[in-house]
Amino acid sequence: MEPRFPGEPLGLIAGGGRLPRIVAEAARAHGFRPVVVRIADAEGDDWDGFAGGYYSWGRTGDAIRFLKRSGVLRVVACGTVSKRPDFRAIVPSFATLLKLPAAFAIVRGGDDRLLRAAARFLENEGLEPMAVQDVEPKLLAPAGRIAGREPGTSEERALALAHRAAVALGRLDVGQAVVASQERVIALEAAEGTREMLHRVADLRARNRLGRGETLALVKAAKPQQDERFDLPSIGVSTIVEADAAGVRAIGVSAGRSLVIDYDAVAAAARDAGIAVLGLAPDGLPDEASRPAASAGSTA
Amino acid sequence: MEPRFPGEPLGLIAGGGRLPRIVAEAARAHGFRPVVVRIADAEGDDWDGFAGGYYSWGRTGDAIRFLKRSGVLRVVACGTVSKRPDFRAIVPSFATLLKLPAAFAIVRGGDDRLLRAAARFLENEGLEPMAVQDVEPKLLAPAGRIAGREPGTSEERALALAHRAAVALGRLDVGQAVVASQERVIALEAAEGTREMLHRVADLRARNRLGRGETLALVKAAKPQQDERFDLPSIGVSTIVEADAAGVRAIGVSAGRSLVIDYDAVAAAARDAGIAVLGLAPDGLPDEASRPAASAGSTA
Repeated sequence: MEPRFPGEPLGLIAGGGRLPRIVAEAARAHGFRPVVVRIADAEGDDWDGFAGGYYSWGRTGDAIRFLKRSGVLRVVACGTVSKRPDFRAIVPSFATLLKLPAAFAIVRGGDDRLLRAAARFLENEGLEPMAVQDVEPKLLAPAGRIAGREPGTSEERALALAHRAAVALGRLDVGQAVVASQERVIALEAAEGTREMLHRVADLRARNRLGRGETLALVKAAKPQQDERFDLPSIGVSTIVEADAAGVRAIGVSAGRSLVIDYDAVAAAARDAGIAVLGLAPDGLPDEASRPAASAGSTA
Repeated sequence: MEPRFPGEPLGLIAGGGRLPRIVAEAARAHGFRPVVVRIADAEGDDWDGFAGGYYSWGRTGDAIRFLKRSGVLRVVACGTVSKRPDFRAIVPSFATLLKLPAAFAIVRGGDDRLLRAAARFLENEGLEPMAVQDVEPKLLAPAGRIAGREPGTSEERALALAHRAAVALGRLDVGQAVVASQERVIALEAAEGTREMLHRVADLRARNRLGRGETLALVKAAKPQQDERFDLPSIGVSTIVEADAAGVRAIGVSAGRSLVIDYDAVAAAARDAGIAVLGLAPDGLPDEASRPAASAGSTA
């Protein structure tokens, strides 16, 4: 995706984590001028050198006016939002008050993946939501081996079981992540998020609640009904480190429908931890044939 | 179920928790002579006044020989098994060594619900596995209101969502328990068990990770493919207390396919906590029409 004119402002609605910064820098490298609205987990993040500021949920209207006044026509929403906004706790500004019914309906909608909802809200405001992979196609996970070594037989079986469970979860519009051994599902992600689910697995392991012969795999899968513009599953260095601490030996993500954040660092961490990282085709098997043209693998 | 002759010995393979003792006392009240093989979590439990003893996984063969020598023809397996046996850590006795391949195959089978597997193993040994509700039909949850008050509208919506997710989980042969609000699924049980899942919800709540308007429901559902002789979902007083601590306002269980352990105490705890406890028909709605003839409700 290229700017429509040199220095086209690109709105970035940034939650927490590393992804928003990677997207902002890629946008700048492609000739955009990023305009960054920080929300939720991004409150304390350092965004020196980028136009924008932090907006609480109560200042949604102000954030939209700021983007419009900055000349923004297209926006990307990404990053983590770990707390749900509590609209009853908001002291609404005048601008927010005008927009509250619409915002309220959005946030009460479904699961905690508010960024997608926020993006739809922006669309109604005349701002076009774009996907992070439109800005940086290299973020998409390839099919087949992404990083680390090849998986062994029991790792492949654990990946297949975790993938099946993750797709079933996704169909319910619940979590994206599952840990399984070759024998059984160990942990399912819901509101707690992937990090806390991995901490739980580490804890079960420390308390000898897992069999010694159980080989663990983590799968993060896109929902079958996933809108690929928003909230794709992602893995980064912290995923590798936390998975390693939980005893996970193989990680699978949906090929072409998930993000690898900071590929070189992920590859190094996977190599150091001795973890196999794979892009899984929808049938759950690594599939070289489904490797997308633009992929993280191309940067390896 | 009546004894075939006065004082017929009834084998009881007892894991942890209150259920095995309730079953043993009911069996005795019906004229059986309970012979209790304690396993797993029951290691430290007090079973004074009952014939039997504790058997480690490595002494499976000894346990079976003990039951047979006691004249046992029918066995009931129930109670909690929170740790998987590690066959590589077993120093096998001679009797176990002879049976190890079969036992090993059982335990490596699927999820952590080992009691069902152990029961199948016994069947191969010529011992007939029976269900706890054969011994004590009052344990089965009725349809409709079981205890506490009637649910409100948002509680009914949370119950319906949790029930849908729990049935989907069951189809995957994973956990039986789900916590949902009227808006989204909050927590899914896998290897950690219901108690730890409820602790997680309490923790999410304490950290303001749930919205103030979210009304929480817990559902424990039988799997669609459930073998009703083994491992039915159950609730007891500790379920009510832990659910209350997690902020859960309504609890649903599969009517006729789940157990209410110690009904009077559950009813008192639900009343004290102000929690609605319901038996759910397979379509997810409380259904008076599907109320089973023999039910916990009849003891109310």
